[in-house]
Amino acid sequence: MRENEYEIIVEFGETDGAGIVYFPNYLKWFDNATHRFFREMNLPLSQLTKEKNIILPLIDVRCTFEKPLHDEERIVLKTSVGKMSAKTIQFNHEIYLDGERVSNGYELRGWVFKGDDGISAQPIPKEIRELLSCDGVIEKERSAI
Amino acid sequence: MRENEYEIIVEFGETDGAGIVYFPNYLKWFDNATHRFFREMNLPLSQLTKEKNIILPLIDVRCTFEKPLHDEERIVLKTSVGKMSAKTIQFNHEIYLDGERVSNGYELRGWVFKGDDGISAQPIPKEIRELLSCDGVIEKERSAI
Amino acid sequence: MRENEYEIIVEFGETDGAGIVYFPNYLKWFDNATHRFFREMNLPLSQLTKEKNIILPLIDVRCTFEKPLHDEERIVLKTSVGKMSAKTIQFNHEIYLDGERVSNGYELRGWVFKGDDGISAQPIPKEIRELLSCDGVIEKERSAI
Amino acid sequence: MRENEYEIIVEFGETDGAGIVYFPNYLKWFDNATHRFFREMNLPLSQLTKEKNIILPLIDVRCTFEKPLHDEERIVLKTSVGKMSAKTIQFNHEIYLDGERVSNGYELRGWVFKGDDGISAQPIPKEIRELLSCDGVIEKERSAI
Repeated sequence: MRENEYEIIVEFGETDGAGIVYFPNYLKWFDNATHRFFREMNLPLSQLTKEKNIILPLIDVRCTFEKPLHDEERIVLKTSVGKMSAKTIQFNHEIYLDGERVSNGYELRGWVFKGDDGISAQPIPKEIRELLSCDGVIEKERSAI
Repeated sequence: MRENEYEIIVEFGETDGAGIVYFPNYLKWFDNATHRFFREMNLPLSQLTKEKNIILPLIDVRCTFEKPLHDEERIVLKTSVGKMSAKTIQFNHEIYLDGERVSNGYELRGWVFKGDDGISAQPIPKEIRELLSCDGVIEKERSAI
Repeated sequence: MRENEYEIIVEFGETDGAGIVYFPNYLKWFDNATHRFFREMNLPLSQLTKEKNIILPLIDVRCTFEKPLHDEERIVLKTSVGKMSAKTIQFNHEIYLDGERVSNGYELRGWVFKGDDGISAQPIPKEIRELLSCDGVIEKERSAI
Repeated sequence: MRENEYEIIVEFGETDGAGIVYFPNYLKWFDNATHRFFREMNLPLSQLTKEKNIILPLIDVRCTFEKPLHDEERIVLKTSVGKMSAKTIQFNHEIYLDGERVSNGYELRGWVFKGDDGISAQPIPKEIRELLSCDGVIEKERSAI
């Protein structure tokens, strides 16, 4: 299954009064990582929504915290496609600091059409399934972002 | 001009690694206070947007920090209408802890119609101007929220 | 086991470009609810940290999303103590809108001493275990917050 | 005076129900940009705090919004040192989209020592003043972050 990874630096504003990263930010990072995953496939979710009215809402999310994180630490977010059902995709996320895993979790998302009269889950199109099923790390030019 | 005030408790997640409230949260509170201001006038902004396609985007915001705030402190947000022009409203905000002012600032917002082909500033309707110009604190039942 | 509940109004800033609540905010609400839970027992976590150097870091968190939430909806957060082990506590959270459950999940937290030379998990003191094990909804005066 | 700039991509979670960036995030970006400014000078603020107990709390912040921003837009944050007084520094921030300025503002920060018995403003050390006064864009290797 397809994988992606990228590095970020923990921002000061992501820490809390205990001096470590405030935990809902891990879930924000999961979301950011999933959006980046699609961007790296040249399939930005903002475009998918604008052009096809497709959104990928969360059904279930889980995060396990193995070691705390601190301001200005450089961490690596690794994302891979887990199980796919007809209408859902699981994204697995891991966070690494200096090569050591500090957190892991997943997002379960639906493939959902957003029309004028509500939303409805849709079968994931064949070409998307194939794109998500490819082996190997996404080939990308390493850029400044 | 109309005023409103309400009390909140600083949340742990609003503090940062320095053990005080992370400053962008003051601006979030300003925004929350403006939404509450309209709710207290029985004119929720969510309804104004849904029914009339009116939004109140920010043009300018400023916040001065007089004393730091900490986890679980009970603070009072005071909001009042400042200057109004044909198409803009200024909301003045002050934050108090134990009767002492710890922060003040303002938001300048436009009265904007959001249509299918873009947004355009609109004259603030007469009934809204009158509602915002009334003297006195908004009369409200003190509720659990 | 002890329970608590309280009502909040969804803030505009908690929604995202899809017009529904951005999911990491549910986890923020879980955290807020746990802090409130301790406040309602007259045992504010900020005081526990200041006086006894005890913190309750997250070990594991999960959230299931049953229905989306929107700006200015009034929701009820219900929190109860789940399993307790010697050094961990599970808090179960449910979110209700108009009497219908829209989300549920849990936080697993450690009872941790934070000293000058690091942190270490501690047995939960007997009086805390008893306080958390009491049956019934926490008795509280309904206040303005 | 010294300047710095870097590019980020607007995250989905930074937008609100109006489909544009929720304004307190601009202030978060200002804060992130100031921290990056110091990192680019090889003077990370996290280290300054840990080794010298120096923090740079906000005294005043202002932000003007010229054009709205949307999900997945690539923006450039430009930061420069403005006025310095004995104990304060002003950081000026501008945000650009496709070469066009969409927002500008400033942060006024104090140079503050955080001791066991409180905080006190301190004169900015001579070597820091010199570092901040250098002309030209900070020389840096363009990296993946």
